[in-house]
Amino acid sequence: SSESNLIRATLFPGDGIGPEIAQSVKEVFKVAEVPIEWEEHYVGTEIDPRTQSFLTWESLESVRRNKVGLKGPMATPIGKGHRSLNLTLRKELNLYANVRPCYSLPGYKTRYDDVDLITIRENTEGEYSGLEHQVVRGVVESLKIITRQASLRVAEYAFHYAKAHGRQRVSAIHKANIMQKTDGLFLKCCREVAEKYPEITYEEVVIDNCCMMLVKNPALFDVLVMPNLYGDIISDLCAGLIGGLGLTPSCNIGEGGIALAEAVHGSAPDIAGKNMANPTALLLSAVTMLRHLELHDKAERIQAAILNTIAEGKYRTADLGGSSSTTDFTKAICDHL
Amino acid sequence: SSESNLIRATLFPGDGIGPEIAQSVKEVFKVAEVPIEWEEHYVGTEIDPRTQSFLTWESLESVRRNKVGLKGPMATPIGKGHRSLNLTLRKELNLYANVRPCYSLPGYKTRYDDVDLITIRENTEGEYSGLEHQVVRGVVESLKIITRQASLRVAEYAFHYAKAHGRQRVSAIHKANIMQKTDGLFLKCCREVAEKYPEITYEEVVIDNCCMMLVKNPALFDVLVMPNLYGDIISDLCAGLIGGLGLTPSCNIGEGGIALAEAVHGSAPDIAGKNMANPTALLLSAVTMLRHLELHDKAERIQAAILNTIAEGKYRTADLGGSSSTTDFTKAICDHL
Ligand SMILES: CC(C)[C@H](C(=O)O)[C@@H](O)C(=O)O
Ligand SMILES: CC(C)[C@H](C(=O)O)[C@@H](O)C(=O)O
Repeated sequence: SSESNLIRATLFPGDGIGPEIAQSVKEVFKVAEVPIEWEEHYVGTEIDPRTQSFLTWESLESVRRNKVGLKGPMATPIGKGHRSLNLTLRKELNLYANVRPCYSLPGYKTRYDDVDLITIRENTEGEYSGLEHQVVRGVVESLKIITRQASLRVAEYAFHYAKAHGRQRVSAIHKANIMQKTDGLFLKCCREVAEKYPEITYEEVVIDNCCMMLVKNPALFDVLVMPNLYGDIISDLCAGLIGGLGLTPSCNIGEGGIALAEAVHGSAPDIAGKNMANPTALLLSAVTMLRHLELHDKAERIQAAILNTIAEGKYRTADLGGSSSTTDFTKAICDHL
Repeated sequence: SSESNLIRATLFPGDGIGPEIAQSVKEVFKVAEVPIEWEEHYVGTEIDPRTQSFLTWESLESVRRNKVGLKGPMATPIGKGHRSLNLTLRKELNLYANVRPCYSLPGYKTRYDDVDLITIRENTEGEYSGLEHQVVRGVVESLKIITRQASLRVAEYAFHYAKAHGRQRVSAIHKANIMQKTDGLFLKCCREVAEKYPEITYEEVVIDNCCMMLVKNPALFDVLVMPNLYGDIISDLCAGLIGGLGLTPSCNIGEGGIALAEAVHGSAPDIAGKNMANPTALLLSAVTMLRHLELHDKAERIQAAILNTIAEGKYRTADLGGSSSTTDFTKAICDHL
């Protein structure tokens, strides 16, 4: 039966605007006849009254089994005594690399029209170790951990990605002039991997200088690989160059071939349920999922429909200066398919 | 005698292009009749054959005694077994706040024409503690240290600065959603100080979001205060918005009222001695020194002459797309005085 040819993929719509933009993906995928069957689970901070859980075992198992999934925004409750769900997912699923393609959208004008780069962020350690303590009153410390294993793993992924996508250059971003041991180890691992890819230019750029160069001339960069916090900072900076997190896809790569695509913007509780949210980041993230599944034709068609709809400019959501609803924008994309 | 009315200020011309751009400052100050007598010392990595020293005790004593100084670029030798001279100076002189005004230069076009902000960076601790070690083979850690004392000190300075300069808003930049204890302590201190300045708006912005907002709309910010590494990153990002480190002044504030103004760009060994260097950053840094000395008339006049020369566009150094020599550019500034 045709049923049996369907690929099962996990869907976490998430909090706030999550369900609305997830609905948009479902519709676009349906019209584009993507052979995917969604396995939907609620993960989020708006507690499910039945499970009384933010994150169920079944949700994690679903991703582990399907090896592919899509996730909407999840609120990060501050000071509620449990760590961010985003971080918990990264940890539980060993999502070691966060990949964010960032390119200028034709027809959506910002100060930059020459952005086309990929940030690849180590996603499991560094400044995100969670190891902190008070030494004495008024003196606290946080530990930044860099391991050879995680550094090699993300460096391998970056070079593999660069080669597979016909990219010319990988830049390792660091502050090894100050953190000689931690960032020094990260660089050492990148260099080792670089030697196996003589066809790809390898360079090392200090993070402060990198940020300056990015805002002056982003065309200088191609693929950037870096420790966790620098990746957090630089991927958002790059998103800003092309218009913000509402427009940039993201995909997390985990051990054992897991790919969990993710919209990295917030859950926007203020506009939740109002049919106003922009589904672009989640849609483009879903496209990265299709590429991961090597459904390149579908990926290409859907991406073109999204970009053409935005470029045309007739249907745009409020965050992009338009007044279309989420459903009208989605319908316009479907019409472009 | 008029001699006795002179203010003594320390001058470290530094490495590479340092002596040439320092010469430019000396000339401009002379023509502007600034009542300063320079006490010049060599601090740098091009070892002085007589003293066999990178940094003499006399150099440090000179700043401690004069309480005011100007410093050119010093190369940071990587892996030469001694730490950066810049860091050593910060440590020895207890330069706890690095202040960088960053504003669009009229007539010098970049993608932004609406930048007018001040970054204030904690300059002594955080990720720059120098505390790092290998835990086991392949696992290294760095310590980030945040203290109540240093955080209060830089926060006090930031609010004091904002008030003294008629600024409306102070934004504390952090990643306390991840580093709850260290960045959390930093924020707590900022909040405490903010309460004493009810006339100044206080806000907290997560660093990744801050970088995105800065590249989208820098006019959203006014005074930014932050821990060491974030300050390093964001001050360079901001410099990029207005054209680069060749154009942005910087001043380090130390305990006991010390002010050491500093050009934060590199020593550019490739063009050293060729009369090609752009002295703007050092000149504008010297202006911040004059303001610190409350020589506001002189500061205003010199700053106007620099900005007018750049705006006019007839004399510009190569880094700004012109072909003027350092000396011709300097002469043009003197003519504007
Ligand atoms: C919400 C926060 C914990 C998260 C992070 O810092 O990684 C976010 O900024 C991101 O980039 O996904
Ligand atoms: C050269 C380097 C040690 C220094 C720093 O990281 O502080 C530089 O980037 C700066 O901003 O002065």
